[in-house]
Formats: sequence, C-alpha cells, structure tokens
Amino acid sequence: MAGDLILTNCCIATMAENAAPYGLIEDAVLILSGDRIAWVGPRDAAPSAEGERQDLGGRLVTPGLIDCHTHLVFGGERSAEFEARLNGQTYEQISKAGGGIASTVAATRGLSAAELARAASSRLEALLKDGVTTVEIKSGYGLDLDSEREMLRGARLLGERGDVHVRTTFLGLHTVPATYRENAGDYVDLVINDILPEIAKEGLADAVDAYVEHIAFSADDAGRFFDAARRLGLPAKLHADQLSDAGGVRLASRSGCLSADHLEYANSGDLLEMAARGIVAVLLPGAFYTLREEQAPPVEALRRHGIGMAVATDCNPGTSPLTSLLLAMNMACTMFRLTPEEALAGTTRVAARALGLEREIGVIAPDMRADLAIWNAARPAELSYWVGQSLLECRVVSGKRLRSH
Amino acid sequence: MAGDLILTNCCIATMAENAAPYGLIEDAVLILSGDRIAWVGPRDAAPSAEGERQDLGGRLVTPGLIDCHTHLVFGGERSAEFEARLNGQTYEQISKAGGGIASTVAATRGLSAAELARAASSRLEALLKDGVTTVEIKSGYGLDLDSEREMLRGARLLGERGDVHVRTTFLGLHTVPATYRENAGDYVDLVINDILPEIAKEGLADAVDAYVEHIAFSADDAGRFFDAARRLGLPAKLHADQLSDAGGVRLASRSGCLSADHLEYANSGDLLEMAARGIVAVLLPGAFYTLREEQAPPVEALRRHGIGMAVATDCNPGTSPLTSLLLAMNMACTMFRLTPEEALAGTTRVAARALGLEREIGVIAPDMRADLAIWNAARPAELSYWVGQSLLECRVVSGKRLRSH
Ligand SMILES: [Zn+2]
Ligand SMILES: [Zn+2]
Repeated sequence: MAGDLILTNCCIATMAENAAPYGLIEDAVLILSGDRIAWVGPRDAAPSAEGERQDLGGRLVTPGLIDCHTHLVFGGERSAEFEARLNGQTYEQISKAGGGIASTVAATRGLSAAELARAASSRLEALLKDGVTTVEIKSGYGLDLDSEREMLRGARLLGERGDVHVRTTFLGLHTVPATYRENAGDYVDLVINDILPEIAKEGLADAVDAYVEHIAFSADDAGRFFDAARRLGLPAKLHADQLSDAGGVRLASRSGCLSADHLEYANSGDLLEMAARGIVAVLLPGAFYTLREEQAPPVEALRRHGIGMAVATDCNPGTSPLTSLLLAMNMACTMFRLTPEEALAGTTRVAARALGLEREIGVIAPDMRADLAIWNAARPAELSYWVGQSLLECRVVSGKRLRSH
Repeated sequence: MAGDLILTNCCIATMAENAAPYGLIEDAVLILSGDRIAWVGPRDAAPSAEGERQDLGGRLVTPGLIDCHTHLVFGGERSAEFEARLNGQTYEQISKAGGGIASTVAATRGLSAAELARAASSRLEALLKDGVTTVEIKSGYGLDLDSEREMLRGARLLGERGDVHVRTTFLGLHTVPATYRENAGDYVDLVINDILPEIAKEGLADAVDAYVEHIAFSADDAGRFFDAARRLGLPAKLHADQLSDAGGVRLASRSGCLSADHLEYANSGDLLEMAARGIVAVLLPGAFYTLREEQAPPVEALRRHGIGMAVATDCNPGTSPLTSLLLAMNMACTMFRLTPEEALAGTTRVAARALGLEREIGVIAPDMRADLAIWNAARPAELSYWVGQSLLECRVVSGKRLRSH
C-alpha cells in the first residue's frame, strides 16, 4: 500500500460507532494517502506500506475536532457591557445605552469581509490550539444584505487560510433590526424574498439558521424561512428553546433540520419525533455558564431517545465569549453530566452529523478526510478532564501535518 | 535617567490602590532598570531616559499575574476517576477502588524532585501562557518527610527555570494518611515534631498550610501546627470553610494567617476580625465549579468589610484540574460576581498580599520588581471577559522580556 504519511506508535480514538469505547485502538497504525485516510488499525494487522513514517511516541490521536456552532465573525467585543453588568447595571440600562446585540451589529456593519476575517482570526487561532479542524461560522450581526454578505465572505476567507475547514451558515433570523421593531413580519419577508436568494445565488452559505424565542422570532416565521431555504437547496439549523419552550423542537422536526441547538427548555414530549428524524441536539454549555442558567438541557431524555448530542462553543460576544472547544467539553461533562466519551463524540462524530458532513469527517476510518488531532495525553478522557489546559501536540488537516501553535 | 528597557505607547493598568480604576494610565511610559521598575507614568511626564526602547503598539500592560494558591506539583492525573463519576460510580466506590486523593498520594510518592518538576511543567507552561510570573505551589500529597521534601524540592526546581518565580508552601495537614486513620492526632504530632522542623531547616518552604474541614483536620490541630510554624519563622495560610463552617476564619484570625482560602461557608460574624487583621480571602472558583457547589463565598460581605479578595486556580488533580488563571478570573466574575477590576486585583495586588510579597510584586510602581504581562487587549476588563482565550503577547520577568508561548 502507498501512503503519503504513516503514523505509528499511537493510541487512536477512532470514534467509530458500535466499537470499543471511543473506538479505541491501542498500538495503532494510521496510513494517510493524499487528503484521505487509507488504513487504520492495530500494528499487528497493518499492511506493508511505503511512505514517510512518523513515530508518535504513544500519543493519543482523535479525529480533528469540529466546532459545529459558532458566531466567530463579528466586529468589536463586549467587555464593557460585561463589566457594566458586574458593576450593577441592568440589562435595560445597558440596552438603552446602545449595548447588547445592537452594539455588535453596529460594530459589524461597515467592516469589510477582510476586516471581519482579521477581527475573527485570534478567536480562530484559539480554537485551532484546541485541535479544531472544522468550524461552522454563522452570520447574523449584519441584518441587511450587504452586511450579512460581508460576514459570510469573511467566514469564507478564513476557510481560505488552508489550515482549517469552514462551513458557513446564514443566520437570517437572529434578531429584529431596530428599524423593523414595529413590523417584524416585514423583516422576515425581506430576509426570505431579498436577502436569502442573493446569499444562495452567490453560494455564500452552506446552511441557514434562525433564533426561535419569545424575544426573537416565532416558529412560524422560522418555518417560512426554512421552507424558502429548502427550495434553494439549503438545509436548516435552529436556535431552539434556550430560554423557554417556544416550539423549537417541533419546528426542527417538521422542517427536517440538521440540528436543534441549546434545548434547555425543550419539551420532552417532542423528543420522540426529533429522534425519529435523526436531528442532532447541539449542546452549548458556554452560554448556559455565561448566562448562569439553571435549567440544563434534558440530557437524560436525549440519551434515552438515542438523540445524538453535539457540543460546541457558541462563540459570540454576548452570551458565550468562549474560544475553547476543550473547555466546552469539560463544561458539558461538569454542568450537563455528559460522559467524556459523549463529549468527544459531540465534537467529532456527532458534530459532523450536525453539519451534514458525516460521510466526510468525524471518525477515523478509510476514505474519510484525513483531519486529525494529536494530543499530549494518554487517555481520551483527559480531553474533557483538564480545565483550561491545551493538550494539543499538532493537527493534521486534509492529510497535511501542521505544527502546534 | 538610565533604563535598561523603556516600554512606550502602551496603556498601563498599574493596579495601584486609591487611583483611577485599575490604576490606569493611557499613553504611558514604563522604564525598567535591572530587575526593577524605575519609572511609570504618562508619556507627557516621562523623564528623558537612555536605553532600549520598545513600542508596544498601544497594548495593555499589567503587573505579571500571581497564582497564589496551587497544588501544581503531583504525580499522575485523575481523568479515570472523573470519567467513572460521570459513568455513575459513587465517591464511595471510587474511594474503595483506591481512587480519590489516595491515588494521587500513591502516584506522587516515589517520584524524585526532578520527576515531579517534569510532571508539573506542562501545567506550569499553561499558567505562563496566561501571563503568570509568580506561582505558589503547595506540597501535601507526600504525607511523609521524604515525599513532602521531594515535592517541595520539585517546586523549587521549577523556580530555577528562571522564567517564573515560585513560592513554596508546606501543606503539612492536607489529609490523614491511611496508616494513621485511627489515630490522626499521632500524625499531627509527627508533622509538628518531625516533618516541619526538617522542612524548615532545609529552607524548603516559604509558608505552611492546613486543610481544616470535618473530613480533614480540626481547627485545634491546625492551630498547634501554625504555632509551631510561627516559632520557626514560617507564616501560615489556611484551607478554610470550603464545605462547612469549621471555624476556619476564626483560626486564621487567631493565628494571624496571611490568607484564608475557599470560604464558601465562612461565618459572616467572623469577618470583622479577619478584616481587622488584614487577612486576605483567596477565592477558588475552579473548585467551586468542578464540585458543582451551590453556596458561593460571601463576596458581598467580604467587600463590605474591606477584606482583600485574591483569585487563584487551586490547580489540583481532584477538585480543580484548572490551569488557566484568566479562566479563574472569568469564573470569579461569572459565578461569584466579582467585578473585572476586583478579579484583576485578585491576581495582582491582593494576590501579592496573600503571599506576603506586597512590597515586591503585584503593582506597577517604582522599586517594585519588573514582572509584567503585556496583552493583546485594549481594556483590562477583556482579561476577565473572554472564556478560554489567551490574550498574552509576552511576559517580562525580573526585567527580562520573554517571548510568548
Ligand atoms: Zn448561537
Ligand atoms: Zn487548595
């Protein structure tokens, strides 16, 4: 067998389903060919192969991590608001002073794609230090065609760096712009009739997303938006039931969404259909932590229904200024009681499903893309156990080994 | 004025007390001479000085961060126990299987100082990436003279790297060794009469510490230990009232401790005396988070009494596998409602007091040691706002500028 890179003397958590815990192979060999995995298995069974060999010194190898829900591209930051809150100001006072999401919209509009990509790059670097090889990035702070387009172009630019794969999501229904406060329906029409078709035509989005909540959009609005997106060939994802049961899970099932995200207040009666339709539950513990929420997502029920649970940073300047996916995994274990194996599946195999990429990434198996993370750790549970420690040795992206940061 | 290094075009949070918020100086100049700060102030007022000039491009400069409470030196790690807990095993089952602190004692004993320092070095590196220039390290997993001595020697070895200052603490009363379970008093006698004098004679410890809790040692035991330490010239620190009101704060006041740490269940009636004696409250949100505690330390009351609040990682393999001091600051804000300014004071000026080093480090002022952190941030509140993001540009330790990691 001809391999471009042959990794030896490693312990591989393949994350293949229905295998040993973590799909673990001790004393493993991994043969990469071009940007693909050619062979993986125990050393004993390895085919003879030509190519550059690298001894990993017993290190742990996992699929490259996937952050399947971020708002990584935005202008400004909101530390002043964070500080004002802790100095006793109310949300209302901050909002009146132009704070909250409106301040991020103001700081984002007017920035070019290149400027937005530059602003996001230090956050992206932080994710890469945690072994991330694929990141999803949403728009949603532009709220008009030009600004949403620049956000998505900025996200695409980050993907052109070549050291990470980027998937873009047009978050068309994120918040009602101030100018439409009295007629939100008109804004939904604008998004559906004017903005979405243009975004789709230019190929700027891999999916769409909406925020269904009493403070944002209704399930009916989102349903109309998703129908329009489907006609344009774009799958949907949904910010669902974070602060209240707003019918998010029912809508996600009805619309055949890839994922329903947050789910703190999901109605457990709706989970059966969600399971039947194979919709992924994306858990976002960074927002739960930052907002000091008290009701956790229904992890026991999700587990019982066999619903796949992904874990993501939700990196955004307001409710989750979190740029570490390993920390999201630790938070998912500590606060939501995921097992370390569930947390790692949630940033690999299941996260791939949340992006519709389960045939391409998320497990280490023949013909999958050679996106890997190599760790200074002996056991996969260490990835969720340490808090704030980067264990990364290096990443492999599309078969190319990249130095650690 | 002659300076060895002149830092210009920066924003300096001096953290000097009774000044502007954060002791902030915009468009500042900082003149270093040898390992000392020679001058700091606004550019307008800067004396003419000879020396190497470095333009910091508007970056934020703070005192080097101080992690004033860690158990950084230990053998092994406890991810298997973390995983077992999340798979439903009880503390009792884990303890019976040799887990818990006993497993760390077993993994620590028998390692040489050099091996212990090597084991701790990746954790130390993580702290340095967060701008730490001084770290306190406790013993307490040896539980016999030889093993405690090796732990403290290992900590001293880390200090000899030259890129960080290490303060060592002999945590003589951490847990009762299994062999003394029926006669803990004999163990306290052993520590006081045999181990402590030897540690002191060899100059291995800068302070002592004890864990007062119903599952550990009584306030009376700790009081005897502290009295003996005082006679040997060693100041005391105390793990106090973490899980219950065990009289920790009263003991700390009576014994004139440098600090009382944890304090979740501190009796508010005891705070007046704590304030009068100038004892620092060290808040350890990493343990609060990991143990999913529900009762936070009495921050409002501490603030009202004018008690200085430090913030530290408590890095340890069981209850706080946390290796990021910036994350501890974020947690202190998010979970304990410290302001970002209090959090930064808690890892600079107040942390220095918790180590008895307030005349040496913790603020940027003439004659203080030139330990600095230079940040890719515009506002000091950003240090507490981001979650899991390292903002460090580089550190200056004893006047020497060290590259970022
Ligand atoms: Zn989101
Ligand atoms: Zn401690």
